[in-house]
Order: sequence, then C-alpha cells, then structure tokens
Amino acid sequence: MNDLVLGLMDRLRAGDVRALGRAVSLVEGGSDLTPELLAACFPLTGRALRIGITGPPGAGKSTLVDRLARHFRDVGKTVGVVAVDPSSPFTGGAILGDRIRFQGFADDSCFYARSMATRGALGGLARATADVASVVEASGKDLILIETVGVGQDEVDIVRLADMSLVVLVPGMGDDVQSLKAGVLEIADVFVINKSDRDGAERLESELITMQSLGHGLALRWVSPVVRTVGSTGMGTAELVLAITDFENWLGVEGRLESRRVTQWRERILDMVQGELLREIRRVGLGDVELGELALQVAGGLVNPYVAVPGLVSKLRG
Amino acid sequence: MNDLVLGLMDRLRAGDVRALGRAVSLVEGGSDLTPELLAACFPLTGRALRIGITGPPGAGKSTLVDRLARHFRDVGKTVGVVAVDPSSPFTGGAILGDRIRFQGFADDSCFYARSMATRGALGGLARATADVASVVEASGKDLILIETVGVGQDEVDIVRLADMSLVVLVPGMGDDVQSLKAGVLEIADVFVINKSDRDGAERLESELITMQSLGHGLALRWVSPVVRTVGSTGMGTAELVLAITDFENWLGVEGRLESRRVTQWRERILDMVQGELLREIRRVGLGDVELGELALQVAGGLVNPYVAVPGLVSKLRG
Repeated sequence: MNDLVLGLMDRLRAGDVRALGRAVSLVEGGSDLTPELLAACFPLTGRALRIGITGPPGAGKSTLVDRLARHFRDVGKTVGVVAVDPSSPFTGGAILGDRIRFQGFADDSCFYARSMATRGALGGLARATADVASVVEASGKDLILIETVGVGQDEVDIVRLADMSLVVLVPGMGDDVQSLKAGVLEIADVFVINKSDRDGAERLESELITMQSLGHGLALRWVSPVVRTVGSTGMGTAELVLAITDFENWLGVEGRLESRRVTQWRERILDMVQGELLREIRRVGLGDVELGELALQVAGGLVNPYVAVPGLVSKLRG
Repeated sequence: MNDLVLGLMDRLRAGDVRALGRAVSLVEGGSDLTPELLAACFPLTGRALRIGITGPPGAGKSTLVDRLARHFRDVGKTVGVVAVDPSSPFTGGAILGDRIRFQGFADDSCFYARSMATRGALGGLARATADVASVVEASGKDLILIETVGVGQDEVDIVRLADMSLVVLVPGMGDDVQSLKAGVLEIADVFVINKSDRDGAERLESELITMQSLGHGLALRWVSPVVRTVGSTGMGTAELVLAITDFENWLGVEGRLESRRVTQWRERILDMVQGELLREIRRVGLGDVELGELALQVAGGLVNPYVAVPGLVSKLRG
C-alpha cells in the first residue's frame, strides 16, 4: 500500500479528525490515491447505520439533522454527517458553512460533518457520496446521516444508498402530496412532517396515510410512519428517534438489512465498473484531444457516431 | 442493413407517421435494432433547429409549446415535439395523453409529438431523449421542440442537448429567482415569464435582468432576453418567436452553433461509449447471476469491491 495511504489510515483509525478530513478531500477530489484509500476503508465499514434524509428545499432538513445528531451524541453514539447539494456548483465554500452550522459540536472528536457540493462529480454523485460515507464510517462512526437538498432523481439515487430513508415534508407545500415526484415518496421508510405547527399538518398527514393504504396490498410490508416535528423547538425529535429505532429493529430481522445492502451493492458495483471502464477508455484512445476531434467530425456529419462508438469499444477489447 | 430497419427507414423518409412512431418505440424500448436504426437516421440529421423548453411544474410549458408548434406550422415549417418527464414511471399512458393534448394537429402529417416518461432509461435519459429527437428529425422535421417537466439536473442535462434553451418561469413562485437551481438559470438562452398577467411579473423580470447583469462581464456574450407571455390567450407568442429568431441568428454566425454542437457531441459520445462498455461487460462476465453473487459477497464483507472491480475490468481487456 502507498505510504501516504498507510499513514493516513493509521491516523484515521486513531481518531485523528484532520486525517479524516484529508481522506475525504482526496476521495471527493478524485485523487489517484482514491481506489487504494477506499480499498483500505472497506474492511472497516458495514457496521454503522446509514440514514438518508431528503425533502424539498426549505423543509428544514438541516435543523432536523442537527437535532438528530445531538440526540445520538447525547446517548453516546459517534456520528458522521454527509450533506450533499447536487445542484450547487460550489465546493470549498460549503466547508466554511459547516463550521458555522455545526458550532455546537466543536471539539467533539466523536462527531464529524462534511458538505459535498460537487456537481458533475466524476462517475456520479450517488457513488461519490457513498464513497465519502464509507471513509467517514471507517473513522469509527456508529451512525452516518446523509442529508440531501432537493427532491430530484439525483437525491433519490443518493438516499437509496442508505439503510433507511427519511423524507421530510412541510405543510402547505403549494399543491399537495400528488405534486411530489413519485420516486421520493416511494423511498420513504419514515415520513417527517416538519414545521408541523403550521396550518395543514393534519391534512398532509392524512394524505400520506391514505397514499400508503392505496399503494400496497402486502400486509407484511413496513408501513412508513408519519412523525410530526418542529425542528426549531425540538418538538417531536423523541418520536422521530423512536420511529427510526422501530425501523432499525424491523430491518434487523429476516435478513432485511442484508438484502437491502445486496441490492445497493449491485447498483454500486455496476456504477463502479462503468466508471473504471470509462477511465480506461479515456486513457487508451479517447483522451481529450481524440474526443474533441471525434466530436468535431460527428458534429460536421463526417463520422457516424453510431458506427464509430462500437468500433472504439472493440478496440479497447484488444 | 437489417431488412426491418431498411423498410422502416424507407417509410420514415416517405413521411409515414406510423413508421416514425414504430421507430421511436424501438429506440425508446432499447430494441436490438436501435444502434442500426440510429446509424441509419444520423445522416438525415443536423439541419433541424432543436429548441429545449424547461421550467418548474405548473409553469404552463405545454400550452406554450402548443402555441409555438402552431405558429411554426402556420408559417410552413414541419414540427416535432418530444416531451419528457424524468420523474414519471409511466410510459404507455403518456401516448394517450398526447392524442388529447395535440388534437388540433390531427391529420397533420407535418407534425409529430411524442411523450417519453422512461425513468431509468438504460444509459441515461438525456441520451435517450437526444436519440428519439434524432429519429423524429430524420423523418424530415425543420424544428424539434424538446419539452421537460421539472428543474432538476436531469432536465438540465436533457435541455443542454438542444441548440437553444427556453426557461419558463411564472410570477410569484414561492420565494424568488434565488431559490431556483443555479443550473437551470445558466442554460437559459431566452427567459419566458408565462402567466405574466399575474402579480409579480415585473418583479420577476427585473430580478432576471439584474441577475444577468451581475453574473457576466463579457460584453460580447448573448444577453438572454426576458419575454412575457400568457399561454392561455396567446399573448406574447409573437414576441417569443422573435426572441427565438434573434437567438437563432446570433447562433448562426461565427461558428457558434457548430461549436455548441461539438461540445454536445463530446458529452454524447462519452455517454454512448459508457453505455456500450457496460453492455459489453454485462455480456462477458457480469451478467445478472454473477453480479448478484458478487454483491452478496461484498455486502457480507467477503470481497473488497475496490479490489474486485479493477480486476473485472482488466479481465474485459483480455
């Protein structure tokens, strides 16, 4: 193993927060050391519970995540937070934001938070997030909270790589639940109605309950509970923790957690394979210059891409 | 060339609408004939102007697209519409919706509309949309309108494959322009404020103008105009057509259109290569059974995926 990776892993395992930050930056930045670093982290993962939290902008996810993190720290669990904004073009700035947001956790070496805002991350943001979460877990965290901003396909893809998904909604979101993207509702293991002191909480709750009773005929399936919270006051945090624990217990039997993770790994492996293949083909014959030249010929109608691309791929096969 | 593809292409070129529908279905469904079909369509493309239209749900994009389609048909242009909803899990149903929506164009063989709603389309929805648009163009359309629902990364990716992007907004959208995802505003060549008879149109317009004056120092750059429309009455359609023509003229000089298309083809080629590589590796050693087995071992901690995946890829290389 590379000496830098070795040294970093030693410090990371010893609880050195700066080593963890360095390792995450390497992975996020797509350093050449990334594969080795991730390979070294892998044996240290698999024991933490990963909770994904998503919902529309303005639903108060950050406040809720802070409440949850505080609770779990108070009961003695080590906690990592990975916050992702797929639409934001900024990276560096996010880290300053973290310092302000998580001030209450300063000097707590059993807590670590990191924002990722890497639009166009090489090989997919969902995979990059899962990789960063692995590094954070490898540093010895019991619980990883993965928070995303937004309700698009990207966010669904990210949250689907967690063991459990919380979908945070607020009363009076324009129309009603129908207007939410189907994918977001499907992934919810627990629904949270935050800012539930506002008008419309009751209506939203009954819509969510009706929706679930319509959608599924299987009696043995998990019926996602609806928890009302007010992030700003802490109201409902205890109930939310209870719902999380209930689901964790449900997951814990009949191989449910394992089966969820196998499904996730199927997707991650395919994603990794694709990324690796792309890196390879970029290296052996489709570098920036070749790609630019080919694009120019295709745009000019001189080369038919549907003929050229299969040709390129067979060339890779040797 | 395959006989079916040959026959289909003959009928498609002759203006047979049913052949076009069939060809689109084959491409959308990922038929084995897709590569051959797309290769046959490619030489017939490159002359149409492709206009992407995006914006939040409820902004009235469909009505606006119908108005534009009607206008361009009235001035003698042939028109194709491809409407995409990345979040919708439905496919078949969308076609019935088209029949109702485009009733005014019945029996007009110079008009064709198609909805795509293929979440999880193999190899990316943006590429699938661009492919379908190519087939529609190959049937002899002067103008392709590509309409998406939503404002996430998927929609941005789709619209970026057009020659020109219209971003449709409405007054009083919750907060203000700041809350819109950055990516959506960046791609706008023309801003449309639809439903502009509502309160707040003026404020939205000045926000869009201010935003642009802040963002860019380049005097020679295209400054995206803001056009006010009311889709339901047709108000502003003429001004919108004028803005589209202005931008088309701007694109037409100094190789701007060509350079845009070269950039797009760079992305599409990389995307195609990735898709092709994935198909190949699935065929030669990572079929469903092998993948399931590998995922099981990884989830159980028995195999380190960061070691196994590079191994798999070198195996592909022979």
